[in-house]
Amino acid sequence: MADAATSQNARGDTRLKFIESTSALMMEMNSIDVTLLQIAARSGLNSALIKYHFGNKDGLLTAVALHASERNMDALNQLVEAKISPRKKMEIHLTGLMQLYWHHPYINVLCQYILRHSEEKYKEAIDKKIMQPFIQLQNTIIRQGIEAGEFRNVDPEMTFYIMRGACDSLIDASQQMSNASRIRGMSQAARLEYTHEVVNMLLHGISSHPLV
Amino acid sequence: MADAATSQNARGDTRLKFIESTSALMMEMNSIDVTLLQIAARSGLNSALIKYHFGNKDGLLTAVALHASERNMDALNQLVEAKISPRKKMEIHLTGLMQLYWHHPYINVLCQYILRHSEEKYKEAIDKKIMQPFIQLQNTIIRQGIEAGEFRNVDPEMTFYIMRGACDSLIDASQQMSNASRIRGMSQAARLEYTHEVVNMLLHGISSHPLV
Repeated sequence: MADAATSQNARGDTRLKFIESTSALMMEMNSIDVTLLQIAARSGLNSALIKYHFGNKDGLLTAVALHASERNMDALNQLVEAKISPRKKMEIHLTGLMQLYWHHPYINVLCQYILRHSEEKYKEAIDKKIMQPFIQLQNTIIRQGIEAGEFRNVDPEMTFYIMRGACDSLIDASQQMSNASRIRGMSQAARLEYTHEVVNMLLHGISSHPLV
Repeated sequence: MADAATSQNARGDTRLKFIESTSALMMEMNSIDVTLLQIAARSGLNSALIKYHFGNKDGLLTAVALHASERNMDALNQLVEAKISPRKKMEIHLTGLMQLYWHHPYINVLCQYILRHSEEKYKEAIDKKIMQPFIQLQNTIIRQGIEAGEFRNVDPEMTFYIMRGACDSLIDASQQMSNASRIRGMSQAARLEYTHEVVNMLLHGISSHPLV
């Protein structure tokens, strides 16, 4: 039993090391085009282990996307049921989304790549474990807000894409904004200001009454 | 004289043919990774002419981006000076931007590619002829709106990126939305609805008073 548990832990450690190395490389290279050779070098592990743990490279990429969005998805799940106003829920949700994009700027491009080009089982994992739950949870908050009279009668599905696009603009802005040049092109303060500006724009955008 | 004019026209025709073929290929392939071979085949012209007319492939790509945004930029220039309310200007501007992204969905990715990877002269062309004028004109409308009391006191530069991200979401939405499957994944009606939803979200988002 102790041996099995130890081996299980070691297995988990190796998986996590590959996932974290891949994530770090994607951030540094500002691209999802990382090679198995680069991942092996970064993790200090043999690239043959990727096949053992993830099946193939797309299996590893899928694990990276699931790992990156896991905490955000848990938080969103709890948020939907919380006894606070839909407007406050939306504020917390959008702020969380901006944090996710800051810590894992590759997440949208990675999910799109897998949904377009990977094997069916990986597409299904991204669709069923990230895209669909995410869209449904955000839609629930929007419907709660419309029912409570706090939100305009927006189309929840279109609003999902519009909000994602607005939040995701953080990534281009962090590389291109003229006054943003310290950390990854944007200081911590500038990132918080940007988050504030996006969340404000979208909350004002969706609200049926002026915000105070 | 007549011969010189004819030759000038022929030169323009060849340039335009390359530009339009490249644009059509990028739309069909849903990617800016088109090869000179593909462009030559599509245009029915010899790929050696690309070097003659554009210097190299990045010169052609720069010409494609400038051509795509030309009409939009002219319209935006005139809009800034028009004697209508800043809110109406913003509505017209955002609607025009959505049209640009629909007809040239590659435009943002293409500009980013050139700004990151091309020679200095092409970077400069995109920056000076597209990015800077565009940001400045949109900023002018935002400042006019703040002064007129129609807009909240937003940060114009951040707002540029946020609005671009929200409008650009049309491209992902047109490929992924569940009810969008006729033309390029989204019917004409669905595109107009999406445009309406984005423009509404951003106008409500930037306005200091509730919209009627």
